[in-house]
Amino acid sequence: MTTNDTLDGLRLDGQTTVLGIIGDPIAQVKAPLPLTRLLQARGINAVLVPLHVHGGDVAALLGALHAVRNVAGIVVTVPHKQRVAGLSIELMPSARQAQAVNVLRRTSDGWQGDLLDGAGFVAGLSRNGFDVKGRSVGMAGAGGAGSAIGLALAAAGAASIDVHDVDAAKCAELVERLRALGHAASHWDAASPRELVVNATPMGMKPGDALPFALSAIQAGQTVAEVIMEPATTPLLLEAQARGARIVHGRHMMNEQLEAMADFFFGEVQP
Amino acid sequence: MTTNDTLDGLRLDGQTTVLGIIGDPIAQVKAPLPLTRLLQARGINAVLVPLHVHGGDVAALLGALHAVRNVAGIVVTVPHKQRVAGLSIELMPSARQAQAVNVLRRTSDGWQGDLLDGAGFVAGLSRNGFDVKGRSVGMAGAGGAGSAIGLALAAAGAASIDVHDVDAAKCAELVERLRALGHAASHWDAASPRELVVNATPMGMKPGDALPFALSAIQAGQTVAEVIMEPATTPLLLEAQARGARIVHGRHMMNEQLEAMADFFFGEVQP
Repeated sequence: MTTNDTLDGLRLDGQTTVLGIIGDPIAQVKAPLPLTRLLQARGINAVLVPLHVHGGDVAALLGALHAVRNVAGIVVTVPHKQRVAGLSIELMPSARQAQAVNVLRRTSDGWQGDLLDGAGFVAGLSRNGFDVKGRSVGMAGAGGAGSAIGLALAAAGAASIDVHDVDAAKCAELVERLRALGHAASHWDAASPRELVVNATPMGMKPGDALPFALSAIQAGQTVAEVIMEPATTPLLLEAQARGARIVHGRHMMNEQLEAMADFFFGEVQP
Repeated sequence: MTTNDTLDGLRLDGQTTVLGIIGDPIAQVKAPLPLTRLLQARGINAVLVPLHVHGGDVAALLGALHAVRNVAGIVVTVPHKQRVAGLSIELMPSARQAQAVNVLRRTSDGWQGDLLDGAGFVAGLSRNGFDVKGRSVGMAGAGGAGSAIGLALAAAGAASIDVHDVDAAKCAELVERLRALGHAASHWDAASPRELVVNATPMGMKPGDALPFALSAIQAGQTVAEVIMEPATTPLLLEAQARGARIVHGRHMMNEQLEAMADFFFGEVQP
């Protein structure tokens, strides 16, 4: 390619493969440039662009984008993850279990959906030296992120997953779902320690937020993991650090998800 | 914006406005990076991405993209220019006259189409110091590019526009269209000189192509203008230069069109 088609390393030309991220709103999404950069570093001429679409327009858009030959896939973000799982598309096991989709890739006659949120979280732990297998887990948050993470931790061999949520019904629903899949799960009091404690709530994003669970849940030698990316180090992580726990930042989940997305759309890179 | 969201100056984030260029094939299009660069140099956070779509899928795609709130417009290239003009969309005068569209911008309930090819060509002449007003024109090529250019030259006040095409019916059709709009137009023998002679055919793109018209049409002091961008200097332009004619390269049409597209999608920049 000539230098006309690159901007200091970023390719964008007639041969560029397009990925879209759909959400409503969309201005807050972080993935476009980091995923584009990661793909192009792998030698793949592709870009990820934001697509702001209301829920009622999602199905028609997915149909139309499937007809665009150089659209390889779609990233799905809030609030469309459940809606997309409900469309008549092929679901991979993680997406089917959580009934939520965050990535779609092209098949000959439609889209295939997967949910990489949980796998990204587990990969982030692993990258930080924490092997989930056989460990006890306490998790705050049974929403979309919590469900995906809980299911992925279970699939990765956690010994038990105990869940807390201010919405008791939501909490019970995730516990039931984990049990139905044969995993050890129960309600967590958000105060007793576990080998791994996870914040899968938005608490800690805004200054002055209460902690997502009691400090009594944190002890030296434990691991405390966040889903929040901003601030990079939440008050919870600061407290955990002060108590001698190992901490895992929210950005690791994001970084590992970007790698998993690149693998999902374009195939895994052989080392 | 933080530096995380820029790649050496190119913005791509959740707030990026998206433009698409539709064509079939699409790999040959040149506009994505140059238009993106031009827009971002104007301070507009937008990118142009290629969308490879077959003719039968164009209408559904335009409908679906209208529902994407951050898609501001579409560039239309071969072979979809005539098809899009035939859809139920609002057409600006140039697009209506030529029954072809190369840009679409969002209105509240649909798309508004215009054809900037011809205006880009005239602007390229003007930028090179050639004022069309009152001049005699000989043009080879009565296809999509020739029609757009002929109509734009007429609108810019050319005294007469004479047309040559190997397809006599196509040639007669453009002559008739120009006459119907009240302009002086007739068949050109492709051999007699004019103040401006224009190549609007693809002849000169491939090595060994014959010249699009006879050298007798070129004299010192005339202007010879190309639509071909590659090679940058065609055999025709080399001959014209050797004969002391002023030459205007095909890239000027492209450059002026990119400026016109930026104006069309986002409003003119006040100097």
